[in-house]
Amino acid sequence: MSQSTNPNRDKIAQLIASKKKHLKQLTADVLFEQIIGGSIQALSETITLLESKNNSDYLKAQDIIKKVIPYASKSIRIGITGVPGVGKSTFIESFGNFLTEKGHKVAVLAIDPSSEKSRGSILGDKTRMANLAANPNAYIRPTASSGSLGGVAQKTRESVLLCEAAGFDVILIETVGVGQSEIAVHSMTDFFLLLMLAGAGDELQGIKRGIMEMADSILISKADGENVKYANIARLDYKNALHLFPANANNWIPKVETLSSLENHGVEKIWNIITDFKQMTTENRHFDYKRNEQQKFWMNESLKERILTDFYSNANYIKHKQNIESQLDKGEITSFQAAELLYNITYKK
Amino acid sequence: MSQSTNPNRDKIAQLIASKKKHLKQLTADVLFEQIIGGSIQALSETITLLESKNNSDYLKAQDIIKKVIPYASKSIRIGITGVPGVGKSTFIESFGNFLTEKGHKVAVLAIDPSSEKSRGSILGDKTRMANLAANPNAYIRPTASSGSLGGVAQKTRESVLLCEAAGFDVILIETVGVGQSEIAVHSMTDFFLLLMLAGAGDELQGIKRGIMEMADSILISKADGENVKYANIARLDYKNALHLFPANANNWIPKVETLSSLENHGVEKIWNIITDFKQMTTENRHFDYKRNEQQKFWMNESLKERILTDFYSNANYIKHKQNIESQLDKGEITSFQAAELLYNITYKK
Repeated sequence: MSQSTNPNRDKIAQLIASKKKHLKQLTADVLFEQIIGGSIQALSETITLLESKNNSDYLKAQDIIKKVIPYASKSIRIGITGVPGVGKSTFIESFGNFLTEKGHKVAVLAIDPSSEKSRGSILGDKTRMANLAANPNAYIRPTASSGSLGGVAQKTRESVLLCEAAGFDVILIETVGVGQSEIAVHSMTDFFLLLMLAGAGDELQGIKRGIMEMADSILISKADGENVKYANIARLDYKNALHLFPANANNWIPKVETLSSLENHGVEKIWNIITDFKQMTTENRHFDYKRNEQQKFWMNESLKERILTDFYSNANYIKHKQNIESQLDKGEITSFQAAELLYNITYKK
Repeated sequence: MSQSTNPNRDKIAQLIASKKKHLKQLTADVLFEQIIGGSIQALSETITLLESKNNSDYLKAQDIIKKVIPYASKSIRIGITGVPGVGKSTFIESFGNFLTEKGHKVAVLAIDPSSEKSRGSILGDKTRMANLAANPNAYIRPTASSGSLGGVAQKTRESVLLCEAAGFDVILIETVGVGQSEIAVHSMTDFFLLLMLAGAGDELQGIKRGIMEMADSILISKADGENVKYANIARLDYKNALHLFPANANNWIPKVETLSSLENHGVEKIWNIITDFKQMTTENRHFDYKRNEQQKFWMNESLKERILTDFYSNANYIKHKQNIESQLDKGEITSFQAAELLYNITYKK
């Protein structure tokens, strides 16, 4: 066990060690200069610092982020959701390659709360998008997702700024069609794209109604061969359903399209939709308005998380919580009285 | 203007004045004794104290609530939702009268966030349920809904305890099919009932998918005459849809029934379903388990609200908020950095 029989393993260990050393050596100023110079390595290392549990790494990353802000924000941020199996990777791969061919630089990030243990299950395996991963104008980063959704979302938003400063002008943020992560992704993107399968009722796809309401566009995936007619029916169904929702404040009417994983016409259609959207919302000023609102939203979310974490880690709170909960269980006090007691004990008022 | 020309107006003013005087005179002990003796007047006055903006009234109510806890909780709490026009009042009136005929005492409360200005639009007009309002074994109370949903929900939960202590063994809590109020009502009841119209897609009814998933039973209302066949089709549709949802932890399979506002068979069916539910969840101990979980949930909600309200009313926070938000707007700092700044300034760290 102590002796490695696999020469590759030694090589990897060496690489990791040299990378770690490298990380510590470069100053925030150097990393910043390299990022705005377009260095993917510096970008990658800074995101690693940002995700580090080591506080000095983290503070260094914050320092870099502060410096890059003036260089960021010149992009379109696109959220992509849909349950596993709907064809998100296939779409992102062909969409990403289509965009780089048009001269764009594409960064792919992910929020995946299900991967708390597996660390980045959505994008952990770059072989899933081998073609795009090898593209020099694309950057795929599996976001670490340990910690609270709020914490993960914050790191993803900061990664977006770093990617933008490094010259990536199309940011794709992927998530899966379950839980709160869609709301988080919706709140940090300009355009929200929902992939759906034809033929399957949306109950089967595990998509919640609220998610459909957030979509700026719905793509019916796997519209190939026999499946084309079902995809077209589904397209009409969703188009009709979307008309039942109240109008968006930005006047945008969500578009429904079909997508073939075998042909490329779907990705061109969706890019045209997104550029129309950007033009329209830029003209009616909703583009910047939404970004400002999102910033305030995340400020309030971060602040709330900070306040509550601070309270819940107070020694008085930890000491008395169980006792007060047991009074509540025994029916000696109401929930509200229990909350008041805990509040006053924690702050010793 | 100074002279009233309407003798009724003088009479009403006198009544209000004498009622106000009466309220101040009775001590918490007397009100408590009268409530557990079954006095609806004392119950009503205590709920008024609870909703009062006068702090000494409020504290008096809290004192009474603390005393009644051992006498409360012996009831079934039923949440009822559905969009306006679905027939909630008609159902509650016939259901309430059916239950009092069987010897029960029925209290009807409401959470209605839409009525912030109109004060209790759901039940404000008792003529909507004139028949039940006149029933000596029924008590209808339009809940004041000024303030945050959390605050309103807390007062409603405490009103439930007061009603239970006064001998009401069936508590109906009504809300409308929009927003967060359903989640609040679901979190304070044992059984959650959703009224739906036949023939209308649930998009049209404004019911969110999440609400359907919370229902212990769905009632298809207005199943009269011509409409019976549509109601039966809808019943099967919803039954099938509910099967797609994951199983409940308490093993209960949600039931779907039709309801005629003209006949009484619907209310008997639903009461049988509720008694089956109570028996089953009492046997498998989920009934008490859920109530305990709800209590802890509300304790945490009240605590959270208290902590955040305290923070947001801090003079440092109020003083610096705008300046930091403007730094954020100008892109000088990230949302997270803005939150950190606000946090540290507020606590002067």
